[in-house]
Amino acid sequence: MSHFIRNAWYVAATSDEINTSQPLGRTICNIQIAFYRDSKQQIQAVEDFCPHRGAPLSLGYVEGDNLVCGYHGLQMGADGKTRSMPSQRVENFPCIKPVPVVERYGFIWIWPGDKDAADDSLIPVLEWALDPKWAYGGGIYYIKCDYRLMIDNLMDLTHETYVHASSIGQKEIDETPVKTTMENGQVVTSRFMENILPPPFWQNGLSANDLPTDQPVDRWQICRFDLPSHVMIEVGVAMAGKGGYHAPADQKASSIVVDFITPETDGTMWYFWGMARNFKADDNALTASIQEGQGKIFAEDLEILERQQQNLNRFPDRQLLKLDIDAGGVQARRMIERTMKKEQPSTANGAA
Amino acid sequence: MSHFIRNAWYVAATSDEINTSQPLGRTICNIQIAFYRDSKQQIQAVEDFCPHRGAPLSLGYVEGDNLVCGYHGLQMGADGKTRSMPSQRVENFPCIKPVPVVERYGFIWIWPGDKDAADDSLIPVLEWALDPKWAYGGGIYYIKCDYRLMIDNLMDLTHETYVHASSIGQKEIDETPVKTTMENGQVVTSRFMENILPPPFWQNGLSANDLPTDQPVDRWQICRFDLPSHVMIEVGVAMAGKGGYHAPADQKASSIVVDFITPETDGTMWYFWGMARNFKADDNALTASIQEGQGKIFAEDLEILERQQQNLNRFPDRQLLKLDIDAGGVQARRMIERTMKKEQPSTANGAA
Amino acid sequence: MSHFIRNAWYVAATSDEINTSQPLGRTICNIQIAFYRDSKQQIQAVEDFCPHRGAPLSLGYVEGDNLVCGYHGLQMGADGKTRSMPSQRVENFPCIKPVPVVERYGFIWIWPGDKDAADDSLIPVLEWALDPKWAYGGGIYYIKCDYRLMIDNLMDLTHETYVHASSIGQKEIDETPVKTTMENGQVVTSRFMENILPPPFWQNGLSANDLPTDQPVDRWQICRFDLPSHVMIEVGVAMAGKGGYHAPADQKASSIVVDFITPETDGTMWYFWGMARNFKADDNALTASIQEGQGKIFAEDLEILERQQQNLNRFPDRQLLKLDIDAGGVQARRMIERTMKKEQPSTANGAA
Repeated sequence: MSHFIRNAWYVAATSDEINTSQPLGRTICNIQIAFYRDSKQQIQAVEDFCPHRGAPLSLGYVEGDNLVCGYHGLQMGADGKTRSMPSQRVENFPCIKPVPVVERYGFIWIWPGDKDAADDSLIPVLEWALDPKWAYGGGIYYIKCDYRLMIDNLMDLTHETYVHASSIGQKEIDETPVKTTMENGQVVTSRFMENILPPPFWQNGLSANDLPTDQPVDRWQICRFDLPSHVMIEVGVAMAGKGGYHAPADQKASSIVVDFITPETDGTMWYFWGMARNFKADDNALTASIQEGQGKIFAEDLEILERQQQNLNRFPDRQLLKLDIDAGGVQARRMIERTMKKEQPSTANGAA
Repeated sequence: MSHFIRNAWYVAATSDEINTSQPLGRTICNIQIAFYRDSKQQIQAVEDFCPHRGAPLSLGYVEGDNLVCGYHGLQMGADGKTRSMPSQRVENFPCIKPVPVVERYGFIWIWPGDKDAADDSLIPVLEWALDPKWAYGGGIYYIKCDYRLMIDNLMDLTHETYVHASSIGQKEIDETPVKTTMENGQVVTSRFMENILPPPFWQNGLSANDLPTDQPVDRWQICRFDLPSHVMIEVGVAMAGKGGYHAPADQKASSIVVDFITPETDGTMWYFWGMARNFKADDNALTASIQEGQGKIFAEDLEILERQQQNLNRFPDRQLLKLDIDAGGVQARRMIERTMKKEQPSTANGAA
Repeated sequence: MSHFIRNAWYVAATSDEINTSQPLGRTICNIQIAFYRDSKQQIQAVEDFCPHRGAPLSLGYVEGDNLVCGYHGLQMGADGKTRSMPSQRVENFPCIKPVPVVERYGFIWIWPGDKDAADDSLIPVLEWALDPKWAYGGGIYYIKCDYRLMIDNLMDLTHETYVHASSIGQKEIDETPVKTTMENGQVVTSRFMENILPPPFWQNGLSANDLPTDQPVDRWQICRFDLPSHVMIEVGVAMAGKGGYHAPADQKASSIVVDFITPETDGTMWYFWGMARNFKADDNALTASIQEGQGKIFAEDLEILERQQQNLNRFPDRQLLKLDIDAGGVQARRMIERTMKKEQPSTANGAA
């Protein structure tokens, strides 16, 4: 049984993964999809299944606005209707499903559910992606676990003390209580640490911001979960006593950890991770250096999540604990389940 | 459920795969078989299962006319009866199944079905294999797909335009209609293209035959499917207007593409491919060069067939199209199914 | 269905596999276990499952007497009770199962069954491990087969003639009858060969013992199976006519082949193999040389056992033969089954 919402926008790829000639085959929410760019460079997405003999269309190539099957030359339109095939009349060929797709903010977004409900105004607004004062760097990981384990992971940053001990972790994280609230349809888990020493990652951040690295700081982490499964985390440090989160820009280093968590199948996921920052936005070397550092840190989560998943599969009947630090993940899962229930046609009325 | 005929000869190996000392273990039509050469160099085949403790006999060695199990020294005869075992009386040991096997034309043929029906006059006659004016080169591929996908592939050469664009493919193939007929128990799909330029593979063929490579030619492809699953394809080009398929020998280059398609299991297959030609038969370097070229071309089919199979597994309920170009494969599958039905004892009469 | 005894001591690891800092995760008899050394270097073993979110505890680290989960810092005690977790009250956390564990003779022994029945006086006494006149060398192999195939293998050394032809095998082994008896709760299979030439492995043994290598010897093999699945084999050669097994020490070379056979899951196993000898016990180079030789010999069994298992899976309905040479394995399996039956609560009384 699947545990994800279908009527929602998911990040399926980054813009630069889909070039102008070669289609990309990728599974999102159990749907095999062929992505390509048409003659106007617009992204198109259809089921990755040629109606002729079932070959994956993503093994073919693009011609004009169509995807050409690499087996026998069937030309598929972006609407899922066959346009042509050598020496064939194609009017009555069966259609395949076009998948609503939008390119925005450097990401490719797809809507796995009801096509008519796909409203692109529902794509979250990423202000940092539009503002030239911000820079962004990120990457993709493929992880063999239920995507909800990643939501739990990101909504409880206590794990940084243990999993990321040498970079962003520090003892004060798991000694400081968190607060979980609902704000405007988001689950928000926040933690504020005062008068502590900055860990190595933030020493670099302060240094890049021309601030001292050996002085006490105030540190914050504000995790915001949105449906269907995005987590944006405001993180930063300010020189101690300067106002913390609200300190003036020249007294702090801060950024937004960007996490788009996309189910591939029921037990596997795509992880689009990145960091958006509003200091030294033009410094490409700094962007690359942060990206490399973050890539290494987030790779530390991969093994623990995959091994956790294997363990849960072995012990399917055990109840996990739901502590205060887990409240963010628990609330996020509840939001998902409530929304999933609304998506399903009611089947509970009537006799068995 | 298996979809292959059992009472028929299949190619199981090439002669040179089975040397004089080491047995070969290979699964054909879901039967695990140990092949070996006896003291007269004659090929023998028995189930690959030692009746003592179940070890594969193919891990052992040959002694005289017997196969010696490499675990405890049981000696198995080619008739499936244990000949001896150190310090044991073997008269009452259970038998294993001997598998009817014939070596002919450089191939090892086996009959997976009813032993008493195994008549070696039913092995197809390969005239080119007996005639010194012909040369042959070929190879083996292992492919993770239902063997019938390969029949479809070979009975519809339209795919050459797309899959083999740089060697034997050309646009005129998929612009020229095919004709599918039944002739003497064979399914025959033929295509004749007139006054076209020869593709790279045939430029080489013309050149090897001392003919010009930049002149228009007439090209033909005649695919012949035989039970249980062999496809022989007459292919060639003649200088345009010289009679095409019927042109005199010095005006054409032609050959026979040889395809023995053998199920390993329900979802995997062995592909014995090769080419027989009747020009420059003594030129071993040419044979090797054609073999290398053909090997590369046929390797291009592997990925598409395996990915097609994966896609069909994901979408098990979708009907595939049966176009005119697919008629050869469709007819071949029907012949297989009709023959399979006759093989099964009728079970439809009587009450449930 | 599992086919092993649960209330018994199994070898789970060697002492040197578990160092002082890093836990070891290993599955024994279908139980995922985290092993570690506490502050007194004593071995502890608990289920490899953190009660917080299910991460494997073996990915964490040791702190004092506890195992710290590498995900969120929960501290697990050796009794399966959570000791602490940052900012949490842990009194009511669910427990995990502690696994009875003992370190003895250089091995780690675990008891997968009823904890209260775990009596360490039931660990077999290994006299050679306590006596400085003996030396030991060994290793571990992981094998994808039912552990009982290894018992069969070791209780019938006829296979040496075939599987180990170049080292310890010789024709006289399978020409000499074996005798299988029950002695003090052990299954004992013995074979005595008189006046034969020593095979290469024993030529080395004689040579190490300053005895001639080209003279006839008397050779013996006495295999002793003990529950749950240990096989100790007394092996050796004596100069012919000097008393064989009972010859004086300066006329023979002998040793004990040590085999602890431990199920990992129903279809996989850990094989702890080694050799204990009572000559030149101080010669570490000889120990290393014998260990290397034995490692190569025992690796020859791996392929045949894994392929035998695959074959048995393919032919699940075939009965295997039970010859005189198989009597040791047959008796050992019967002892296991009788003991397993006693372990299960009787369910046969009463109506369905």
